[in-house]
Amino acid sequence: MSDTLPPLIVLVRPQLGENIGKAARAMLNFGLTEMRLVAPRDGWPNPDAGPSAAGADIVLERAQVFENLAEAVADCQHVYATTVRKRGVTKPVVTPEEAAREIQTQSGRSALVFGPERSGLETDDVALARKILTVPINPDFGSLNLAQAVILCSYEWSKHQQLASPPATQLDPPGAQNELDAMIAQLDSMLEQAGYFFPPDRVPATKRTLRNLLTKPAWNSLEIRTLRGVLTTLAKPRPR
Amino acid sequence: MSDTLPPLIVLVRPQLGENIGKAARAMLNFGLTEMRLVAPRDGWPNPDAGPSAAGADIVLERAQVFENLAEAVADCQHVYATTVRKRGVTKPVVTPEEAAREIQTQSGRSALVFGPERSGLETDDVALARKILTVPINPDFGSLNLAQAVILCSYEWSKHQQLASPPATQLDPPGAQNELDAMIAQLDSMLEQAGYFFPPDRVPATKRTLRNLLTKPAWNSLEIRTLRGVLTTLAKPRPR
Repeated sequence: MSDTLPPLIVLVRPQLGENIGKAARAMLNFGLTEMRLVAPRDGWPNPDAGPSAAGADIVLERAQVFENLAEAVADCQHVYATTVRKRGVTKPVVTPEEAAREIQTQSGRSALVFGPERSGLETDDVALARKILTVPINPDFGSLNLAQAVILCSYEWSKHQQLASPPATQLDPPGAQNELDAMIAQLDSMLEQAGYFFPPDRVPATKRTLRNLLTKPAWNSLEIRTLRGVLTTLAKPRPR
Repeated sequence: MSDTLPPLIVLVRPQLGENIGKAARAMLNFGLTEMRLVAPRDGWPNPDAGPSAAGADIVLERAQVFENLAEAVADCQHVYATTVRKRGVTKPVVTPEEAAREIQTQSGRSALVFGPERSGLETDDVALARKILTVPINPDFGSLNLAQAVILCSYEWSKHQQLASPPATQLDPPGAQNELDAMIAQLDSMLEQAGYFFPPDRVPATKRTLRNLLTKPAWNSLEIRTLRGVLTTLAKPRPR
């Protein structure tokens, strides 16, 4: 777990309460809780936000409202203005991945700033940011909505957090070699009795093929025991 | 651009046409176009899908429908079953990032399989997959919807594609050192005339401080010229 502060998510003039709720849900999924709202169109609180937050109420309850972006990011050291379109850009442009890496290593508070649904951030808003954050997207179909942009940025940030460590894969290890050998021997013996190995000069190669094939799955002890049970059953004289 | 095939997105028994549309939109944003539908609840085509696809109609038009998952992935070599919850997992679990990396390097077709909105994939569906794909998520608030899961996986895949290369940052390089030096000299001279440098024994340190401060921004030639214009203006005798 890093000691650096998690980024703020700042929504500038968001239009629909529903989208504010979706953004809150996206944030909390990846462990972000601090939302700031700049002049939300329909005021705040907004009854449409809660239902689409799908339980991320704490983010909405704690959301702070500001009149303009300058006030909303006044206490932030690192302001990223997200844009999907490329305008006459005169600032460094980073991906969500790069921004997440920077946030992880730089001291001070970072703010990820998102514009209104339809129009995106205005030039004056972008002017407050030191960097532009752009999600690399299909050049022939760029249609990310607000919550999707928020979730991608939150997701990238979360990768650096404890919570995002890959789920531990508690797989049983493969059975020991002697367990596997015993199973292969059992099968070999059955196949020999069944006249499988023919012609004689091909037997070593055929056995090697089988061994390779049975070694590959990395079966665990339980699976090997199960398969030996299968073989044992198959080896029994057939009922008439 | 990699030569490996892009993954298929397979939606198993999706409930709402709206969510199928959103998934299509999420896919196309990151360059994926092949969707397969297994027994969509409300049949196919579904009039609710189009509006939420936000223009990603080509994905919906090309979507193929299958009766069961086995048929939908019959031509695939690498099947990933996405789950958010951890069940009695006996398969390797990978993150979207790891899956994207694998898809990039392994030959054959890969399928990313997503379950119904409410319930997720059933055990029988998961049994068809060699690996589990799980999005690492806030353990106290896991609430990813179908389209969000699809977009995160598509986004990770796109990182390996040409289209996802970070937008080229066409910043003018910093001005040459002699341009900066000339500006600093101009300022120094103005400050000397204004009696800024005092006491005398602090002058070198103060100048060094100023130089550091003015070197840091990495201004380009145009910016330096602009600032020199500002200084020139300031240096002019004030109008009475």
